[in-house]
Amino acid sequence: MKIAIDAMGGDHAPKAQIEAALQAAAQWPDTEFILVGRPEALQPHFVGGLPKNVTVAKAAEVIEADDEPVRAVRRKTGSSMVVAGRMVKEGAADAMISAGNTGALMATGLLVVGRMPGIERPGLAPMLPTLDDVGVLALDLGANMDAKPEHLLQYALMGSLYRQKAHGMAQPRVGLLNVGTEAAKGNELTKEAFELFENAPIRFVGNVEARDVLDGVCDVLVCDGFSGNIMLKAIEGAAGAIFKVLRQELTSTWKSKLAAAILKPGFGRVRKKMDYNEYNGAPLLGLNGLVVKGHGSSDSRAMLTAIKQTRTALSGGLIEAIKGEFSGK
Amino acid sequence: MKIAIDAMGGDHAPKAQIEAALQAAAQWPDTEFILVGRPEALQPHFVGGLPKNVTVAKAAEVIEADDEPVRAVRRKTGSSMVVAGRMVKEGAADAMISAGNTGALMATGLLVVGRMPGIERPGLAPMLPTLDDVGVLALDLGANMDAKPEHLLQYALMGSLYRQKAHGMAQPRVGLLNVGTEAAKGNELTKEAFELFENAPIRFVGNVEARDVLDGVCDVLVCDGFSGNIMLKAIEGAAGAIFKVLRQELTSTWKSKLAAAILKPGFGRVRKKMDYNEYNGAPLLGLNGLVVKGHGSSDSRAMLTAIKQTRTALSGGLIEAIKGEFSGK
Repeated sequence: MKIAIDAMGGDHAPKAQIEAALQAAAQWPDTEFILVGRPEALQPHFVGGLPKNVTVAKAAEVIEADDEPVRAVRRKTGSSMVVAGRMVKEGAADAMISAGNTGALMATGLLVVGRMPGIERPGLAPMLPTLDDVGVLALDLGANMDAKPEHLLQYALMGSLYRQKAHGMAQPRVGLLNVGTEAAKGNELTKEAFELFENAPIRFVGNVEARDVLDGVCDVLVCDGFSGNIMLKAIEGAAGAIFKVLRQELTSTWKSKLAAAILKPGFGRVRKKMDYNEYNGAPLLGLNGLVVKGHGSSDSRAMLTAIKQTRTALSGGLIEAIKGEFSGK
Repeated sequence: MKIAIDAMGGDHAPKAQIEAALQAAAQWPDTEFILVGRPEALQPHFVGGLPKNVTVAKAAEVIEADDEPVRAVRRKTGSSMVVAGRMVKEGAADAMISAGNTGALMATGLLVVGRMPGIERPGLAPMLPTLDDVGVLALDLGANMDAKPEHLLQYALMGSLYRQKAHGMAQPRVGLLNVGTEAAKGNELTKEAFELFENAPIRFVGNVEARDVLDGVCDVLVCDGFSGNIMLKAIEGAAGAIFKVLRQELTSTWKSKLAAAILKPGFGRVRKKMDYNEYNGAPLLGLNGLVVKGHGSSDSRAMLTAIKQTRTALSGGLIEAIKGEFSGK
């Protein structure tokens, strides 16, 4: 099994990427890791030389965080992200992971790796934390801004297979993000999708309201890329706002500072529970190979989590399973 | 000025509604308050008789929280909500306030009160709390599930007028809820709306991401009813989840319990900052009169807030201003 890692993408690249690859190589000797990037940038981090299952693939360019996605992918054909994508396309790697420009990675998936036959629109599927610590796979969270009911059905099927293959769930519960739980609720898109879901080979648990998502009421949450992205950022914004106000309150007097110091480990655990990095590694599902997005702020621990998820999904036969589901359709 | 209050709608009806009306009547002797409901349910709460500016309008029926909205409005023509709506329609009241079934109130607005000429789809416009305590008027948050760009433009114009007339803002900043701040971001709907907004007589500050809404980056946030509702419930859900985990952490040991007790007032202030009731009273904008939704769990204090906002908007000439903006268009 071969996993290509875009060593140049992300806030802590290439250090975090290289450290994670070296740790992964030691942990899984049966897997090959290919670090893609500028050799002169990578070299200083190879202190004790490279283990047998880590190699370097040369890529002269880098796609930056503020590059316009589609243009960057078209023009920077020698960039680490595009080179890694080409390796997946040509079978030189089974999967690629990048913590770089999200839009550019989606464009790399579409334009370089290519859609799987039968799939209309690939979907970005990150895991969101839930209170019961199981987490929920949400898709699409940003690849497809104007989704059709059929796209949502494909997300439901692919998300269901991902939870089976990557997380060993027998019958993942699939929910449809909506403004109410009743069947008749929602916009035209969700009303039509609801009917498709009811007749699909999935364990459909009905409409799910955004306020219940973090309670873990489903294992796969299906939504269009626009409202899914709104939901995700609203959760982030609310959490950020609450912690900001808490911090102000807890440092306002010496008494509250003292009390807050006692509670510090507890606050840490609360933050950790809401921490997206705990589940780092969002697959872009529906491509001819596995493309995985790491959070832009990924450190080596987060990158290792992404690598682990990617490896489990590959060993579980995810790509073959999705191909089987959609071939001839 | 006459304000009809649906005395039967909401978790604490009719007590909260009656108490609020009596307090409001004492505070604003120039305003007439009409309590609409079943006299035998209201009577026990009129302990010392009624002041001159509070009257009762008889309504034999009640629309319940779980009634199917449109059917309930069509069939229960003698319900407190529909009777109040009819008073607005016929000019017997300038505004109505209800903390009852939201869907039924929107149906009452459309079917009983009626749309204002020139307005295609009324929008529900609650205030959301922001960290700077100014709050943001968000619309539409649930009346119009399949919005068109022109509807969003009307929301921008009406929301802007509401902040001017009800809150005395000279030039409210209008933002468009989107998945990124760049002009080219979003789905077809927001891309087209962006262009309309740029050429409209409003102070358009561009796209606003859901994660920045609570920071108070705009005074009016425009969105379609579906994604707006997703955003609102995602914020509620995230806040609920965080406070739930905090509570568990803070009561886990005797030391943390002690520290938490010291911090209790601080936590109370944080919760209050996120409290939607502080801004109770969401106008349904675009109707032939003012229809205001109170939160279902409104107590008398929250109802009084709703009454105050309604009164300010009426005195500011909100309805005339919106009519002026859209007449002949």
